[in-house]
Amino acid sequence: MSYFASVPKIRYEGPASANPLAFHHYDPDRRLLGKSMAEHLRLAVCYWHTFVWPGTDMFGAGTFDRPWQRPGDPMAQAMAKADAAFDFFARLGTPFYTFHDTDVAPEGDSLADYQRNFAQMVDVLEAKQAETGVRLLWGTANLFSHPRYAAGAASNPQPEVFAWAASQVCHAMAATHRLGGANYVLWGGREGYDTLLNTDLKRERAQLGRFFQMVVEHKHRIGFKGTLLIEPKPQEPTKHQYDYDSATVYGFLKDFGLEHEVKLNLESNHATLAGHSFHHEVATAISLGIFGSIDANRGDPQNGWDTDQFPNSVEELTLIVYEILKAGGFDHGGFNFDTKVRRQSHRPEDLFHGHIGAIDTLALALERAVRMVEHDALAAFKARRYAGWDGEFGRRILEGGYTLEALAADALARDLRPQHVSGQQEALENLVNRYIYG
Amino acid sequence: MSYFASVPKIRYEGPASANPLAFHHYDPDRRLLGKSMAEHLRLAVCYWHTFVWPGTDMFGAGTFDRPWQRPGDPMAQAMAKADAAFDFFARLGTPFYTFHDTDVAPEGDSLADYQRNFAQMVDVLEAKQAETGVRLLWGTANLFSHPRYAAGAASNPQPEVFAWAASQVCHAMAATHRLGGANYVLWGGREGYDTLLNTDLKRERAQLGRFFQMVVEHKHRIGFKGTLLIEPKPQEPTKHQYDYDSATVYGFLKDFGLEHEVKLNLESNHATLAGHSFHHEVATAISLGIFGSIDANRGDPQNGWDTDQFPNSVEELTLIVYEILKAGGFDHGGFNFDTKVRRQSHRPEDLFHGHIGAIDTLALALERAVRMVEHDALAAFKARRYAGWDGEFGRRILEGGYTLEALAADALARDLRPQHVSGQQEALENLVNRYIYG
Amino acid sequence: MSYFASVPKIRYEGPASANPLAFHHYDPDRRLLGKSMAEHLRLAVCYWHTFVWPGTDMFGAGTFDRPWQRPGDPMAQAMAKADAAFDFFARLGTPFYTFHDTDVAPEGDSLADYQRNFAQMVDVLEAKQAETGVRLLWGTANLFSHPRYAAGAASNPQPEVFAWAASQVCHAMAATHRLGGANYVLWGGREGYDTLLNTDLKRERAQLGRFFQMVVEHKHRIGFKGTLLIEPKPQEPTKHQYDYDSATVYGFLKDFGLEHEVKLNLESNHATLAGHSFHHEVATAISLGIFGSIDANRGDPQNGWDTDQFPNSVEELTLIVYEILKAGGFDHGGFNFDTKVRRQSHRPEDLFHGHIGAIDTLALALERAVRMVEHDALAAFKARRYAGWDGEFGRRILEGGYTLEALAADALARDLRPQHVSGQQEALENLVNRYIYG
Amino acid sequence: MSYFASVPKIRYEGPASANPLAFHHYDPDRRLLGKSMAEHLRLAVCYWHTFVWPGTDMFGAGTFDRPWQRPGDPMAQAMAKADAAFDFFARLGTPFYTFHDTDVAPEGDSLADYQRNFAQMVDVLEAKQAETGVRLLWGTANLFSHPRYAAGAASNPQPEVFAWAASQVCHAMAATHRLGGANYVLWGGREGYDTLLNTDLKRERAQLGRFFQMVVEHKHRIGFKGTLLIEPKPQEPTKHQYDYDSATVYGFLKDFGLEHEVKLNLESNHATLAGHSFHHEVATAISLGIFGSIDANRGDPQNGWDTDQFPNSVEELTLIVYEILKAGGFDHGGFNFDTKVRRQSHRPEDLFHGHIGAIDTLALALERAVRMVEHDALAAFKARRYAGWDGEFGRRILEGGYTLEALAADALARDLRPQHVSGQQEALENLVNRYIYG
Ligand SMILES: [Co+2]
Ligand SMILES: [Co+2]
Ligand SMILES: [Co+2]
Ligand SMILES: [Co+2]
Ligand SMILES: [Co+2]
Ligand SMILES: [Co+2]
Ligand SMILES: [Co+2]
Ligand SMILES: [Co+2]
Repeated sequence: MSYFASVPKIRYEGPASANPLAFHHYDPDRRLLGKSMAEHLRLAVCYWHTFVWPGTDMFGAGTFDRPWQRPGDPMAQAMAKADAAFDFFARLGTPFYTFHDTDVAPEGDSLADYQRNFAQMVDVLEAKQAETGVRLLWGTANLFSHPRYAAGAASNPQPEVFAWAASQVCHAMAATHRLGGANYVLWGGREGYDTLLNTDLKRERAQLGRFFQMVVEHKHRIGFKGTLLIEPKPQEPTKHQYDYDSATVYGFLKDFGLEHEVKLNLESNHATLAGHSFHHEVATAISLGIFGSIDANRGDPQNGWDTDQFPNSVEELTLIVYEILKAGGFDHGGFNFDTKVRRQSHRPEDLFHGHIGAIDTLALALERAVRMVEHDALAAFKARRYAGWDGEFGRRILEGGYTLEALAADALARDLRPQHVSGQQEALENLVNRYIYG
Repeated sequence: MSYFASVPKIRYEGPASANPLAFHHYDPDRRLLGKSMAEHLRLAVCYWHTFVWPGTDMFGAGTFDRPWQRPGDPMAQAMAKADAAFDFFARLGTPFYTFHDTDVAPEGDSLADYQRNFAQMVDVLEAKQAETGVRLLWGTANLFSHPRYAAGAASNPQPEVFAWAASQVCHAMAATHRLGGANYVLWGGREGYDTLLNTDLKRERAQLGRFFQMVVEHKHRIGFKGTLLIEPKPQEPTKHQYDYDSATVYGFLKDFGLEHEVKLNLESNHATLAGHSFHHEVATAISLGIFGSIDANRGDPQNGWDTDQFPNSVEELTLIVYEILKAGGFDHGGFNFDTKVRRQSHRPEDLFHGHIGAIDTLALALERAVRMVEHDALAAFKARRYAGWDGEFGRRILEGGYTLEALAADALARDLRPQHVSGQQEALENLVNRYIYG
Repeated sequence: MSYFASVPKIRYEGPASANPLAFHHYDPDRRLLGKSMAEHLRLAVCYWHTFVWPGTDMFGAGTFDRPWQRPGDPMAQAMAKADAAFDFFARLGTPFYTFHDTDVAPEGDSLADYQRNFAQMVDVLEAKQAETGVRLLWGTANLFSHPRYAAGAASNPQPEVFAWAASQVCHAMAATHRLGGANYVLWGGREGYDTLLNTDLKRERAQLGRFFQMVVEHKHRIGFKGTLLIEPKPQEPTKHQYDYDSATVYGFLKDFGLEHEVKLNLESNHATLAGHSFHHEVATAISLGIFGSIDANRGDPQNGWDTDQFPNSVEELTLIVYEILKAGGFDHGGFNFDTKVRRQSHRPEDLFHGHIGAIDTLALALERAVRMVEHDALAAFKARRYAGWDGEFGRRILEGGYTLEALAADALARDLRPQHVSGQQEALENLVNRYIYG
Repeated sequence: MSYFASVPKIRYEGPASANPLAFHHYDPDRRLLGKSMAEHLRLAVCYWHTFVWPGTDMFGAGTFDRPWQRPGDPMAQAMAKADAAFDFFARLGTPFYTFHDTDVAPEGDSLADYQRNFAQMVDVLEAKQAETGVRLLWGTANLFSHPRYAAGAASNPQPEVFAWAASQVCHAMAATHRLGGANYVLWGGREGYDTLLNTDLKRERAQLGRFFQMVVEHKHRIGFKGTLLIEPKPQEPTKHQYDYDSATVYGFLKDFGLEHEVKLNLESNHATLAGHSFHHEVATAISLGIFGSIDANRGDPQNGWDTDQFPNSVEELTLIVYEILKAGGFDHGGFNFDTKVRRQSHRPEDLFHGHIGAIDTLALALERAVRMVEHDALAAFKARRYAGWDGEFGRRILEGGYTLEALAADALARDLRPQHVSGQQEALENLVNRYIYG
């Protein structure tokens, strides 16, 4: 019997419904700005947290009792896990999912094992996709859990580990391609250092650069049309990771000529661990032209590790969705729930509560953000604020019409005495709240 | 009478001396690795914290009673301040100083005032330098204190403010050039945002890029041979600043073609506010080829603002000096004390205690770092750790000898099973402590 | 002419109004759970941030041009400030205000000056209160700005400073009493240390304990019926302050027998600086029986100092108001806006935008919290969750019916095998969002 | 063959030795202030991190290959682990060890299993202690790893879980008593909450208070003379834990009348996670009279979780040891290495490097702290700083000789004008460095 038998298909029942196992705001077919909610949000459930993690933490054993995690034949377990996952996707009604290679197939003891097991499971996934209509938002390779990656994958001091990582990416990208994935993600959780005492930053960066160049070249060679995405993450599980944040990854991409080939998969909790608001990371990536996709979760403002909680702040996400809409909406990207239920929430239905709340939060955020875009008082304010730069003086400066000296002379000649102008932060915050709370 | 009359010239008296107003470890002429301590460290005292700040904080009035800060004619005050500053430099015996334009001269009410006052004080500084032999490590312009800069200088929504900033940089760089400054610094403390709601990141970044290009072009035009330095700082006084950290500034420089023109002035407290160890920021800048100079202070690990305390950790600074020695030592840069005494430490002699402790800390760090470089067990360890990348397989990968697919095929064919190798962090930490504690 | 002449009296215009200088949700007379919104919220404007602060920060000069802050006769300035303040209160329509002694009157050069100036201004305030109907939520003494308090007030190494602090509290409490203040606040911003190297924690704690005992005794002696409030604050402006958080203050109060005499004035930004959610601090204080009043502001999750921004999160404040309603609502306390406009927001109307947004946020939070209390699904859930403790076994344990050994024996005899039960965090978070977003 | 066969007995070889597997500073029999180094430091190795943890983290599998962690019969594994542990203790030469009940014996499936397994292993430990002379610094019960404790132990919503916890403490304390343990520790890692939405703070606190009262009563009943220790820890693995820091625990102890029965086991990394310096936590506990013992590790200043690294800062630990010496030294407590090697450091000898470095760091800190105590310039400075409180005026205030009003009157009458006095922080920091660096 299905592990999720107690949970019926989740349907939109509207805000007035008292049923916690229903959507109150996410109406997938509702149209806003010419697209359905489903098309705007492109929601995905992840294998990793939702079907692989057993409820352990650094101080405690697993609290879940997922049948596919019990002792047993690894391939049989992988099949049972896939059954449960697609059963969950279907009941929840999300159009996409995401996975790491080793989430879906056992690693085995050698590259040959790995390839055989993975190939077999990709067949299974393909069949399940066809059967359910669920699509792949992105695939990726797990280059961080196995002991061989303890000192990094592409940035490892041993080239043989780099070669293993290359193999996994090669197969995971092929699988993603075959399964029609919209993107391929690279998450460098072990690409960093535990201590500078044993680390050669310059070497490791060069290794990483070469790795990404090989990956980009490979993508084009196999004809994969999806987007390559790097997921910035600052300092967990290592002391420091190279993909610290959007701005850091941008400098890296520029250095290796990859800024037009790779975009970002931004995770809310990784933004906050890097000392930034999530809004900052999204707006920065957009301003640099490298925004790609979202891992929609939240951290805990007081806890200093990746809590990967389900997002529940309409206030925060309205601004995120607003930025994305202003940038033209998702192209290949989407909102992937890289989220886990709390360790105490061990029941099958808790997995539904987590996702339903997150989805309704995004639906509300979308609805509010659409209101913001329709009037776009923020854009109008900014246009007025920077109007001087669209005038003759401003344009001439930006176009190179002045040397520093000439500009200084001009300022003196005109005895410029610019007065500061209010930034109106409070009024603008009130404006946003009026879009959210009517 | 001198404000510092109670303090005699500070001399090296050796570790056994009980005199707190003496150097116990900094012996300027002592030679290590072919240079004197003074040449290695290139110590500078800053005007800003030491002679301008009156001991205020956000909750309290000034606690200092510096005569040159009392009410009076601004130019007379500026002269008295310069007298006090050079008196202090001479008694302390540091070879360099640093200043902002408005530290040394009153701003006045217009560009004409500003230029006249500043020009007059530059004459004074020139005479004082000649008289005392004290040299200028770097000059800079204060583009953050005046209300006109409340919304930024080069990134301001008003081009007129950009023009004011250009004027100040033009004059401050001319003064630095004339005074023989070894570097010119740009600190973007207001180049950032208070809220994204009123901010156009892309525009502001373009303005900043243009500004730096004008500054670089100007430097070459006037024949200034010093280094241009950007000082990264993450999130004070604004919510976020564009020069967040080394990696962020690197991406910016690459974008505007400036990575060979501008280097970094790294401050310890700014590193920690950005969520990095100071060691990380220095090692990163070196690995990216943009290391320039140091603002030597420390923050408080528990307080979330720029406490700008005097550095006192030999343990931390030994690793910093080691990195700098390995990178060839300072070229134009040096250790500038961008530090302030605590608000309670209002006595003239407290300014000496702060600087003496910091200088002895650096001298000890230099001595220990020299030991580390002489044996260089860390470098030997790293060479062994990455040896595979110097072998045929590693070199071929890095040189582009494999496609991803070819490398994957090779890994499978050879059935690679790399084993993880200890990173020996604990042993290396012990090694460093043996250099420090004998 | 009034500084605020451009701003009409702020009125409730409902959610549909497009007027930013109106309340959209705060309808003071609207009744909920038997009280008006005004009675529930007891809103207060503070003198300190709104009328005293000139728009300075640690890196910049004042950006405001408040007429009463220009050079001039101190008492005339104080009068002009009081005029402006009460004009503001009247236009905004908030029922309460709060002040420090030195906010309203110049300190002068001696205790005699202080007392005379303050007494004169208390007369003025009394007349203004009578005239406008605005009431005093609390008064307090500024024991942190003057240089004499650089090393603390009651915890100062000099007993003479303790005596000065005692004098100020004596007068500030008398003024509060006379002006009908509902509470008297003690904020220990300088009661802490900059370094443990010069600090005797035990002595300073004993001094503080004695001080509070004297204050409590004095309160009763003069017949002041208001509540004494301590405002916890962790680490600004000093490295550490004794009143770190609710739990720390509770231990202090217990030690000096004051836990029934003193309650807490909790500030959101101080909670977050202490590493706690604001919800945590409020719930903790309530659970310990020492909740008193609120300084309603917000910090910035990425900035490590007291940004004192206007609150704008309905999501956060709904839970705060829910806790307060469950605890019976405010007794003497209220929501005081210990908030400041951003330094760029220098216009008179910006002060209104800040307060209006904050007030509407609280009104929305109140409305949502009332819905939560009416159904109280959270309370019902908790009752079920802890039901075992209301049963015979649980009650017997708590009442002392078992020794450890007897309980262990009982557990063995009954072969207890308790299973973990879901904490349902995700479902509860969804529930709260349904109260907020319908 | 011994897992540690490659490592000879670690001996003191002095600072000049180049042998990394020797002590360079820890000379156990060297006498300082009348006690040997071994007697001062009372060093202990912990079972938990060093013999139980397999090198996992939240993103990766175990990297260690400890024979006793391989699949096999649980009791046989436990025996092999005990063999390895005592072999390690003997080679390292530390006089003490520490353990959780479930570190040394398998939990089994019921209370009966638990008791039987544990009893059998306590016999083993007793024999090993007798054989090697290694003693027990403290024992404790693991009330956090098993799923039954997911929602807390004593603070669990189910009284049956409380009863299980009581059983474990009962047996673990009996074992500690029998094995001659000097202390018994209580670590409340799961006593806290994940969300306030499902938590009744008041109930849970009452449960905890009752639990501790039962534990104290039991200790006296069985005649255990060791010290009961609570180990504060702020926010991992839960969102918030009740034993947040020293000051919080103090308030809790006062509330339940336990402040003379329970002391603190302070861990460096827990101090920093709570937002305090370790120095702060130690000085606070001493000033409150509840200092007991130390878990000697360090965190990473940039990583927000319990990294439990080996301590390596002589600068930090000198001040810690100074405080402990001033408080009379350890009574029952000691320095326990609650530390783990990095996940990459998988070799047997890495466990030795970690401990050797930590021990030498403590030996250096002890030596420097002894110098500080011998001259005690810090104490002399403090005596001068607070001298006024030992004078007539200060004493009279503290002894209750003034009402607030009388003191205010006295201050006015004497026209007190106290001047601020330098806190000399910089001079004192230099002084400390002179003790450390000669
Ligand atoms: Co993610
Ligand atoms: Co994450
Ligand atoms: Co600086
Ligand atoms: Co700084
Ligand atoms: Co406040
Ligand atoms: Co505050
Ligand atoms: Co511990
Ligand atoms: Co720990």
